[in-house]
Amino acid sequence: MNSENDLKATKVVEHMMEHDLFSQWLGIKVMEIKEGFSKITMTIRKEMINGLGIIHGGVAFSMADSAFAFACNNRNVLSVALDTSINFLKPVHVDDILIAEAKELHNGRSTGLYHITITNQHNHVVAVFKGTCYRTNKTLI
Amino acid sequence: MNSENDLKATKVVEHMMEHDLFSQWLGIKVMEIKEGFSKITMTIRKEMINGLGIIHGGVAFSMADSAFAFACNNRNVLSVALDTSINFLKPVHVDDILIAEAKELHNGRSTGLYHITITNQHNHVVAVFKGTCYRTNKTLI
Amino acid sequence: MNSENDLKATKVVEHMMEHDLFSQWLGIKVMEIKEGFSKITMTIRKEMINGLGIIHGGVAFSMADSAFAFACNNRNVLSVALDTSINFLKPVHVDDILIAEAKELHNGRSTGLYHITITNQHNHVVAVFKGTCYRTNKTLI
Amino acid sequence: MNSENDLKATKVVEHMMEHDLFSQWLGIKVMEIKEGFSKITMTIRKEMINGLGIIHGGVAFSMADSAFAFACNNRNVLSVALDTSINFLKPVHVDDILIAEAKELHNGRSTGLYHITITNQHNHVVAVFKGTCYRTNKTLI
Repeated sequence: MNSENDLKATKVVEHMMEHDLFSQWLGIKVMEIKEGFSKITMTIRKEMINGLGIIHGGVAFSMADSAFAFACNNRNVLSVALDTSINFLKPVHVDDILIAEAKELHNGRSTGLYHITITNQHNHVVAVFKGTCYRTNKTLI
Repeated sequence: MNSENDLKATKVVEHMMEHDLFSQWLGIKVMEIKEGFSKITMTIRKEMINGLGIIHGGVAFSMADSAFAFACNNRNVLSVALDTSINFLKPVHVDDILIAEAKELHNGRSTGLYHITITNQHNHVVAVFKGTCYRTNKTLI
Repeated sequence: MNSENDLKATKVVEHMMEHDLFSQWLGIKVMEIKEGFSKITMTIRKEMINGLGIIHGGVAFSMADSAFAFACNNRNVLSVALDTSINFLKPVHVDDILIAEAKELHNGRSTGLYHITITNQHNHVVAVFKGTCYRTNKTLI
Repeated sequence: MNSENDLKATKVVEHMMEHDLFSQWLGIKVMEIKEGFSKITMTIRKEMINGLGIIHGGVAFSMADSAFAFACNNRNVLSVALDTSINFLKPVHVDDILIAEAKELHNGRSTGLYHITITNQHNHVVAVFKGTCYRTNKTLI
């Protein structure tokens, strides 16, 4: 169902992704955008590991945070992250292929709440992320 | 006060940092390590921005998560992050110089709790991070 | 599907509820218990309001925390709450009838992660809760 | 230092406490109010225990949430809790005397961030709470 709103949402995210140098460094690819929803993927590289030989928690967080931004901003209402949290359920390794899916739990006028789930290529959930955003009066495009 | 425990803590973190390719990419420099404590710094580069022209939230999180890891592992007890959260208080820009300081609120046998504060070169707090870890039976070095 | 495990889970929660004087004061009724799952209900009373005339956030948290405890302990493995968070989405009023449902996202040997959703009689989500627990070696019954 | 702002803050909290039936049931007493700050106390009673014989997590949360409300509303700007979290560090028992102190980390025009620390009569920290609020255009008194 590619409604007009979903097309607009896709355009907003294309604009964001074009300027988002850090998501580009991470190798994030957008899979699907709908109003208040996003689904993205990335492949883990060696330069993303931490001092314990597994993936740095910040890499998984960054992926989830990008999915969050692509979901909460895509009505073309500039929204800023206030409070976010992430739980790490399974270690992530080099060459793992991750998918992050952002779902909207609340779309208020002033604030929003989103849950992002990150799964690996074995369909195991490796992390769950929660994001609260504050909505400004500005547009993105 | 450079006690024996603080020297050991420093050695653990040196070992971690040597293998932590993502913290190296971020440009993290260790400023001070004590038992259950860490202080690190990094300078923001252009490739760290998001689609809104400010620093990607994942970069600030990653810095705090490194400070957390350096504090909660430095008694040479391998500890894994369970639940972490971050609040973003001020935007961070290219060329900003950040300092993250990790303090131990609780050092339990099985779990630990840490608060990390990130400040910029104007001594403004830009983010506050909270991390809960689970302690394993393993050592790092 | 009332498996043996679900019957055991129900017995553990009956034992907990019998001794849980605060859940009794709240008026919590258990609706359904399965392994790693719980569903409970309560009706909001006047003595539960805060200084703004709506329900005190602590009341919704307490309900979710009970649902969390009933889900994460019901394999008869004593589990203690480490880190919990709650987002408030809609105000709750006197005479509202709430239902809290706890779902298990992760059942690890040492830790567990649960999401609890609270809905009102109009089937609106009023709060979402996240709980991380640490598992001890003790039993409850 | 009892500035005019602190006197106004005290009046706002007196008004809140007068209508806050749940904080009254908990037995909360206000110890000190300053602009953006609150300190309260309560004594744990038998009807506050959970099914494990210690204090229900919801009781500690409720106390912290009251301290949060008294701090974040006391400039007479009605503020609503968005996202709150609590970490439980030590069990609380019947007859324990708790003190909760709320400190303001951020006082923004649209949002605020507060840390609340709960200590017992032995000066041990039993729980730490974090609260993000959204500021409305309304006043309380």
